[in-house]
Amino acid sequence: MPLAIGIDLGGTNIKGGLITEKGEIKSQTSIPTLVHEGPDAVVERIVRIVNDLRSDQPGAIAGVGIGSPGPLNPVEGYIYTTPNMPGWENYRLKDRVAEKTNLPVTVENDANCAVLAENWLGSGKGSRTMILLTLGTGIGGGIIFDGKLVNGSVMSAGEVGHIVINHNGPKCGCGSHGCLEAYCGAAGIVSRAWELIEKPGTVSVLREKIMNDRTKLTPAIISAAAAEGDGVALSVLRETGKLLGIGITSLVNLFAPEKVILGGGVAAAGETLFHAIREHVRRYAFAPASQDVEIVPAAFKNDAGIIGAAGLYLIKTDTK
Amino acid sequence: MPLAIGIDLGGTNIKGGLITEKGEIKSQTSIPTLVHEGPDAVVERIVRIVNDLRSDQPGAIAGVGIGSPGPLNPVEGYIYTTPNMPGWENYRLKDRVAEKTNLPVTVENDANCAVLAENWLGSGKGSRTMILLTLGTGIGGGIIFDGKLVNGSVMSAGEVGHIVINHNGPKCGCGSHGCLEAYCGAAGIVSRAWELIEKPGTVSVLREKIMNDRTKLTPAIISAAAAEGDGVALSVLRETGKLLGIGITSLVNLFAPEKVILGGGVAAAGETLFHAIREHVRRYAFAPASQDVEIVPAAFKNDAGIIGAAGLYLIKTDTK
Repeated sequence: MPLAIGIDLGGTNIKGGLITEKGEIKSQTSIPTLVHEGPDAVVERIVRIVNDLRSDQPGAIAGVGIGSPGPLNPVEGYIYTTPNMPGWENYRLKDRVAEKTNLPVTVENDANCAVLAENWLGSGKGSRTMILLTLGTGIGGGIIFDGKLVNGSVMSAGEVGHIVINHNGPKCGCGSHGCLEAYCGAAGIVSRAWELIEKPGTVSVLREKIMNDRTKLTPAIISAAAAEGDGVALSVLRETGKLLGIGITSLVNLFAPEKVILGGGVAAAGETLFHAIREHVRRYAFAPASQDVEIVPAAFKNDAGIIGAAGLYLIKTDTK
Repeated sequence: MPLAIGIDLGGTNIKGGLITEKGEIKSQTSIPTLVHEGPDAVVERIVRIVNDLRSDQPGAIAGVGIGSPGPLNPVEGYIYTTPNMPGWENYRLKDRVAEKTNLPVTVENDANCAVLAENWLGSGKGSRTMILLTLGTGIGGGIIFDGKLVNGSVMSAGEVGHIVINHNGPKCGCGSHGCLEAYCGAAGIVSRAWELIEKPGTVSVLREKIMNDRTKLTPAIISAAAAEGDGVALSVLRETGKLLGIGITSLVNLFAPEKVILGGGVAAAGETLFHAIREHVRRYAFAPASQDVEIVPAAFKNDAGIIGAAGLYLIKTDTK
C-alpha cells in the first residue's frame, strides 16, 4: 500500500506526516523552522523529518510533497519571493531535498495543498470545481477547476485574497488597493471593530476584553464576543460576511463552483459570518450558480497542509 | 475534409457560415432574427440558413454549432434567461434544430464562441490559458483555462464583466453594484465623459461632435475625439483603461493567463486605452504573471461568432 510524506513548511514550524493512500496520518512530527538560519539549514531539518518518518516504515515511500509559502514554481520546485523567508529567492528546494533523501520531491503552494486536502477528503470531497479561502492574517486559498488546481501558465495564480472589491479602498499588503484581503484579513476586521468600539457611547464587552487596548483586539476575541451576543461584535461579523460575499460573488461569476469552503481562524466565527456571506452571494451572483453553490466551513484544521502535500503523490489523477 | 456550420444567433441578425477545418469561411449569410416572432419562427430561419449553406456542399457536415446569448446550458442546449429574447426561457434550441436538420447540434454561449475563435486562430492562438473581454454595450467574454472553456459545474461562469471593482459603485444591470461592466460598459464610459464635458470651462471637440446632446455621446465618438488629440476624450480613455486594469488585475491574480484579449467596439480605441490597462496590471497584479501576460486586441471583428461556433465541431480536442 503506497505511502507518502507530506511536509508543511511554515514560517514558524515545519510539520511532517507519513500519510496512507486513504489520507490517514500514520505518524507525524513538528520542529521549529528557524528561518533565520537560512535555506540550507532548513533543508537539513526537512531531511531529518523525512528520515524520522520513514525510519519505522519498511515499505516504499512514493514521494515527498512539500507545501511552502508562495508564489513558487511547482515545476522546477523553487520559491519566487518569500516576504517571510529572506534569502530563499530562487532556492532549488525541490532538488536539494531530492538529492539528500533519494526520493521524488514535489513543491507546491501551501494554500494549494490545503485545497487538495479539502477536495480529496474534506468539505469539497468529490467537487469538480471548488474554491478554498483561508481566512487568517492574510487571505490565502486556491481553486480547483474541473478537477485541476488553478496554477496558471506562469504559476502565480489562484490568489483569491487579491481580487479587488473596492479600488478606492485601503492599501493592501500586495501593493494594490481594496483587495479582499485588505478588508477581510485580520487587520481589516480588527480595524472595522476598533472604529465601532472607539465611538463614544458604544456599549460592548469587547472594551473590557481588550482593556481598551487596540493591540489586544483579534478576530478570535471578536468571534468570542459575538458568541456572547455582543452587538458590536455581531455587527462586525455581519459586515465582514458581506464584504467576503462581495469577493465570493465575483468568484462565483467567474467559476460557478460547486463549493466555496472557508477555513482559517476567522471562519471559526461560524453561522453569523456564513449567513451574511450566503445572503450576499444568493442575491448578487448569477443564477444558477448563486443558488446552487454551497458555502461551507473547511473540514481540516491543522493537518490539511501535510495531508494535501502527501496527496501530491497519493491522489489518483483524473484522466478524464 | 470536414466542414461545419457556425451560427451566430444575435438579437438583430442570425449569421451563418460554412467553415473548413482550417477555420476558413467557405460561404456565409445573414438574415434578420425577428426575435419578436418567437423561438419557433427563429428556429425556422436557422434551419433555412443551415440548408442554404449545405445545399452547394456535397461533403459531410460534422455538425451545427450555435452561438447564442446566455446564460445557457450547453449540455442540454437551452437558454436559461434571455433579457433580450423574451419567451426563450428553457426553450430546447438544440433539440429543435437537430430534429429539423438531422445534424448534430451544439449550443454554446456566444462569448465562449468568440473565445474559441481567438484561441483557435486569432490573437490567442496556442495559449493554454487566456481571457477575452468583449467591450461593447455590456462586457462579455470568457476564459480558457488550461485548454478548456471555463463553464463551471452549473454552466453560469466566465462572467468576466461581473467581477466587482467597487462595491460602493454604481448599480449594474445584473443587480449587483460596481461590476466592471457598470464602469466600462458603454453607458459607464459615456457617463464619465459627460461629467467632464458638462463642467463649466471644459474645452473639448466632443461638445460640437454631439451638439451638446448627451444622448448622441458614444464610446466610438470618444475614441474618434481622442484620435484627434482631444484632452477630455484622452482622459476618459485613460480612466477607462485604469478601471479595466483593476478588473484585469483581479483576473490575472486568479488565472495568470498568458494572454488577455480585448475585443468589441470599445477596444478599437487603441493604444491610449491599452497602455493604461497594461500600466495598471504590470504595477498591481502579482508577478510573474503581471509581467508576462500579453494584453492585446482581438484578431476577429465580426466573424468570431460563426468561426468559434463551427469550431465546436472542428477544433481538435486537447487530450492532454
